[in-house]
Parts: sequence; structure tokens; C-alpha cells
Amino acid sequence: MPEKKNEVIHAALLGAGTVGGGLYRLVKKMKKEIPHRIGCELDIKKVLVRDASKPRKGIDESVLTDNWDEILNDKDIQIVIELMGGTSLAKAHIIDALNAGKHVVTANKDLLAQHGEEIFAAARENNCDIQFEAAVAGAIPIIRPLMQNMAGDNITEIMGIVNGTTNYILTMMTEEKMSYSEALKIAQEKGYAESDPASDVEGLDAARKLAIMAQLIYHTNVTFEDVYKEGITAIMPDDIRYTGELGYVIKLVGITKLTEGKVEARVHPIMLKKDHPLASVRKSFNAIFVKGEAMDEAMFMGRGAGSMPTASAVLGDVLDVMRNIRMGCCGRVQVENYRDIPVKPIDETKNNYFIRMKVEDRPGVLAEIANVLGDNKVGIANVSQKDTRDGVADLLFIIEEVKESHMVEACCAMRGLDCVYSIANVIRVY
Amino acid sequence: MPEKKNEVIHAALLGAGTVGGGLYRLVKKMKKEIPHRIGCELDIKKVLVRDASKPRKGIDESVLTDNWDEILNDKDIQIVIELMGGTSLAKAHIIDALNAGKHVVTANKDLLAQHGEEIFAAARENNCDIQFEAAVAGAIPIIRPLMQNMAGDNITEIMGIVNGTTNYILTMMTEEKMSYSEALKIAQEKGYAESDPASDVEGLDAARKLAIMAQLIYHTNVTFEDVYKEGITAIMPDDIRYTGELGYVIKLVGITKLTEGKVEARVHPIMLKKDHPLASVRKSFNAIFVKGEAMDEAMFMGRGAGSMPTASAVLGDVLDVMRNIRMGCCGRVQVENYRDIPVKPIDETKNNYFIRMKVEDRPGVLAEIANVLGDNKVGIANVSQKDTRDGVADLLFIIEEVKESHMVEACCAMRGLDCVYSIANVIRVY
Repeated sequence: MPEKKNEVIHAALLGAGTVGGGLYRLVKKMKKEIPHRIGCELDIKKVLVRDASKPRKGIDESVLTDNWDEILNDKDIQIVIELMGGTSLAKAHIIDALNAGKHVVTANKDLLAQHGEEIFAAARENNCDIQFEAAVAGAIPIIRPLMQNMAGDNITEIMGIVNGTTNYILTMMTEEKMSYSEALKIAQEKGYAESDPASDVEGLDAARKLAIMAQLIYHTNVTFEDVYKEGITAIMPDDIRYTGELGYVIKLVGITKLTEGKVEARVHPIMLKKDHPLASVRKSFNAIFVKGEAMDEAMFMGRGAGSMPTASAVLGDVLDVMRNIRMGCCGRVQVENYRDIPVKPIDETKNNYFIRMKVEDRPGVLAEIANVLGDNKVGIANVSQKDTRDGVADLLFIIEEVKESHMVEACCAMRGLDCVYSIANVIRVY
Repeated sequence: MPEKKNEVIHAALLGAGTVGGGLYRLVKKMKKEIPHRIGCELDIKKVLVRDASKPRKGIDESVLTDNWDEILNDKDIQIVIELMGGTSLAKAHIIDALNAGKHVVTANKDLLAQHGEEIFAAARENNCDIQFEAAVAGAIPIIRPLMQNMAGDNITEIMGIVNGTTNYILTMMTEEKMSYSEALKIAQEKGYAESDPASDVEGLDAARKLAIMAQLIYHTNVTFEDVYKEGITAIMPDDIRYTGELGYVIKLVGITKLTEGKVEARVHPIMLKKDHPLASVRKSFNAIFVKGEAMDEAMFMGRGAGSMPTASAVLGDVLDVMRNIRMGCCGRVQVENYRDIPVKPIDETKNNYFIRMKVEDRPGVLAEIANVLGDNKVGIANVSQKDTRDGVADLLFIIEEVKESHMVEACCAMRGLDCVYSIANVIRVY
């Protein structure tokens, strides 16, 4: 075993934004500690930025470059740390780097959720490491546990709160009784939400992370496009209040499981019993709940975003690559989709549902609606009437497990009834 | 990179008890899946048992042996999976195996908490893998996250519920208002507690796991003997009730942190605010709460014991060793204590405290007691009087952070007061 003490491994950092800047600071801070832990030093030799003439606080000017080729052609640089984001330039650089035999650490969920298979294949072909712990749920260790700790088990289901913005908004709506728009505004003020919040609140960000996890545990290609996405913009204070009274909290989750030989992969609001471990995950925290045949249940909670938490996950990966370089075993853990499992359309999934509807307040209405539900093979687990006012009542149903297509048809049919003024919301129940 | 497809790696299993039997079944079940994930097959060639003539359900008779040398001298066997438990024979076999160049996977917390440094040194000297994910908190991925994911961060504190038996007992005492002995009886009936429960209820089991974790994060030798241990046998229903009224739950935790250049390592009951993530970890579940400078906070929850959950963690390790064997990089991750940090005696630690005492019910008593506390530099955060009956009152204090030695002296002095009938309990508060 070659023991090359005090050797230096050089890396290049692509991007000096929030996470890139955080990583640079963290590497500086841990400089003396790293050789003790890994057996060699880490040097960030180059930092790729759009404008190299613009000074970056805390980053030595001499390492800044806006020329990718300077990094690609530098034989000293063995690791490329991609924190620039985006899917076109980042993809090109990563593929370039792998083809040049450089190892890659990335936090780019957009890229992996869209082009994961191509990137993983390039890593395999070049016997290179591609590590991406920070791409899913920031500082929470989940990629390594799924790929290594749980490699001897069959993971049957993952349910995760993997978007801090929406979890913060839902927490404010629940605990502070805010409306969606009030909560969004606070989230934006606190820096938890972007000025254009669509990617978070529409569930797109969560869908990217879910696609990556689904691929890892089912060993089949699952992309962002395959994931059903439904955000939180339709959640009203009445939904929060009524579901709370029924003993539930509403969370935006990503769920993937294997049913009837197909992969379910979906992001949508869900009602969780208050004693479910995910129910108590508050504010901007993320958490991932995993079920396995042998391991039973586990949950991982932590910071899903933020400069330093994300940087800590990235640096963990970089150090792991350094171990592999020293031991000559890069490419030790690879992603390989050795299965080809179809993704199940949301219509074919089975769920319990909560329905909140505005109906005419007179005897016989419940019977009419119950008949329509029954005709569509939809069973009622629980029904209650609330807030009758001016001849209008709120009618709440909890529906027994049923195929989503039946539920959709039943809603269509109910909307056709004169006594039904509106179906205010339908939320899936865990 | 040598790609030896469909190669077989042979292992020996030591022990065919609860976990050993579970592992054997799990390997059988995952037989066809493993080559897809790791690139080669796993074969359990030998199983070491005390009496090889006694048939074991589900285990092929031909693999049973009671002769260790048969395993040690078998050049085919590259991995030894030690699930026999105990610290003498298990230690000898593990050292033998490592010296013979065999890699070791073990779930033996007793052994590692006592002789970890010696065993890790033997692994390093022989460039062998020693993996022990299942030794701490069963199926919860914690060793790999601490050693790899968090290698780029400084972990400042770990607080863990790492004993399912005591967590189950405390949950029953809290939720079902049972006494300690009632809850213990139920735990024994359900198989969560041994007929001699001392190792669990005295905090010894938790102390072993804590010693292992402290060693990994502070890179200094911390053994079972170094850990302060206080169990749950003194927790009374009154403690549960009163602390509940104050907004706390009582949990048995292991805590390790660095303060004033020393390692704190201690297992004792603690009062946690009800909204702390560990507070909602119920029944026999384990959970570990980790704080790091960059990563902020994370929590890991899952099954800390049980045949199949523990086996899943063991098999994850075995598969990781197989990856290393294939890639020629065994010994890739080693435990090395490159620091020498003293352990802080419990007397020197600082804590908040809850005191429950029986006092004479007359005016002036509180002033007398408050004077004694003040004389001993102990500040009062909160005081309340409860359940006055027959001239005796329950007096409850929450004490501001103070050095434990001052608290001990203050308790001594209070016991000397005529108005103090007894100090019923003192519990540390987080």
C-alpha cells in the first residue's frame, strides 16, 4: 500500500457563489486537519468564475480564472468540484473532466435528475469517481447511506421532505396561521425563498432530488420528467385547520416506492398523522424517511440547504475521492442502472384522500354525494360537516385507499351535482 | 482497473445467534442481487458455532464448524464476520484474522468500546478493513456518515438515544403512566429487555456506543471506562409527571462534546424540551443527534437492534469490504487516534438541573433553601411548589447552568437543613 505522506491533491472549483464560496472557506479552515484524516493535503488550485477580474471576498485572486481549458488541461488537477449550477455548461464541463480522467464532485441536482445516466456512464467508462452527496438534501447524509449502508437490503419506500422553502411556508401556515402568500413573503424576507419561488413551491426542486434517489434505490433510470409534480400553492388555511383537527399535518413530500412492478415517483402535498416522524420536521429542515425489508424504518434529518451545511457535504465527498486517489481505487462505487422498470403514471397509483368541498346545506345532500362516490368505487372512511353559513356547508371526507383515476372520475361526477358548489381541495393522505 | 465479473468472495460467520442467523438468511435472500450491486458473489463458506453437531434452522449443516483454525487457515476466506459477541474469544479471533490478512466486519460494541484502539491498530498494520457500522445503533447509518460524510467538518457534539430498552421503558412510563418496574416487565415480555436488564438500564450498553462515537469524532482514545454512566432506575413517576408539566420529556442519552479542551463522555437521563427532535423518538427506536460547525444539526433515527435490522447494517459493511477487495483498496478508511485529549470528569462538566425535593410546608423554607443554593454559587431559573400534603410539599427547581461539583455540594448542604426531608431526584436538563 503506497503511503505518500504530506502529498498534495489539487482540485478546481467551478463556481464561487453561495456554496462555492462556503466550500472555499471550509477548505481553508480545515487545511491542517485534512492531512490527519486523509493522509494528504487538499489544494484548491483554480476557481472558475464568469468574470475573473471581479475580486471575490476570501478567495485568493491568483486562483480565479474564467478559462475552463486552463483547468481541463492542468494535469495537476485531479478533482473538479462543480458548484456552478445549471445544466448546459456544467454538464459539458463535467463530461469533459471525466473524459480527461478527472474525478467529479457535484451538488447539481438539476443536472443529475435530467442527465444522470449519461454522466454516471461517463464516470464508469473512465473509472472516475462521481460523487454527489450534496445534490440531495444538502448536509443530510443520504446518498452514501443509500448506496453503501443499505446496499445489502431492498429499499421499499422513500418519503422525504426535501425542500426547505415549502416546509418553512407550510410550518408558518400551520403554526402561525398565516395564509400561503403571507408565509411566502416571510420566507422570501428570510432568504428561504427566491423572488421567483416557482421551482420550490411547484415541487420541481423536490422532484429533482426524488428522481436521483429513486434511481439509486431501484437501479433504473428515473428522471425529473418521470416524476409527478404538484406544489403547495393550492393549500388554503382551511385545509391546514381542518386537517389539523383531524390529527394530521400537511407536508410537501417526495415519495418513491415499487408497486405492481412499477416505480412510483411523485411530489405532492400529503397529510401525515401528527405522530409520524416526518410530521415534526419543522421550518426549513429537511428529512428523509426510508423503509427497507430488513432495516425496517429509518429517518434522516438536517439542513437541506445553506452555504456551510451544503459545503460540508461537498467536502466530505472531496475527501472521499482523495482517499480513493491515494489508494488507487477511484470508481469504487458507481451508479449503474441494471434494471429497466417502468414508472407508474399517477392515475394508476392508490391513495387515501382528504376532500374538502362546499355544498348546499340541506338534508339529503350527503346521500347524493355518497351515492356518486359509491358509483365510482370510492369508499368513505370518515365524513364530517363544518362551518355551516348562509346555506353553505363545508363537507370533509377521508376516503379509503382507491386508485387515483377513480378518485378523479368521482370528483368530476360530484362537480356535476347541483348540491355541490365546489370541490375546494383534494389532498392525498398517508 | 481489474474487472473480475462473477468472481466469488468467501466469508466466514462467527456466531449463529439472533444477528448471525439473520445475516445468514439475508445473504441467502440477496444472493442474486449482490453481483449486480458489487460485481461479485458473496459466499458464507463457514459458520463458527460452539457445537457444530447441533442443527441450526436455515443454515446448511456442511458449513457449520466449531474449529476456528479451519477458518483461520482457509486461504479462500477473505472476510470474517464476527457476530459471536463477548470480549475475550471474539477479540482473539479478530486479531488472528487481521494478522492473517483477513478483513473483519463486527457488530461487537463491547469489544470495540474496550479494545478499539488495539483492534484498529491491528487493522492498520495489516492494511485490512475493519468495519463496524452495526456496533452503534444497529441499522442506523452513523459510523459511515461520521467517518466519511462529515470528515470535512468538526463535529462539536453528539447526543444519542442509543439504547432501545431504556427508551421503551421511559416511553411507557411517560405515555402509559407506568412505574419503572411495570414498564420493565412489559419490556421483558416484549423481548426488548433481558431477564437481567442491568447492562441496559444502568446505561452500560449506551456507554459502549458512546465511547466508539466519541473516539471517531475526536480522534482520541475514549473507552467504556472513560464514560460516566448513570441509568434510569431512579426515575420515578413523579419525575416524569412534573417534568412533563414543565414541558420536558426524560430520555436516557449518551452525550459527547469538547469543552475547555477536554472530551465530555457521559450517559445519563436528561430532560429535553418537548420540541427537541430527540424528544419524539419513541419506544424502542434509537436516534442520534449530531452538531457540526459547518453542517449545523442533523438527526438519524431507526432500529437500534433486532435480528434483521442489525443484519442489514452488517451486510452493508460486508459488501463495502467486497468492493475494496475487488478494487484492491482494503484499509481505505481507518480509525486513527491522532490526538490525545483528556476526558473531563463528570464533576467538572456544566449542566442545568432539575431538583425534586420533599420539604417542610411552612413559610421561610424556600428562603432557607435558596440561601444554601446561593452560597454554593447555584442560580435558580425556576421554582415551583406542588402537591402539599400532611405538612410536606414537593419543591421543584430548575437550576441555571453550573458546574456539577457545585451542584453536588449544594445538594449535600441542602440535605443538612431540617426543613429538607429528602432530595428525591436530581436530573440534568438540556
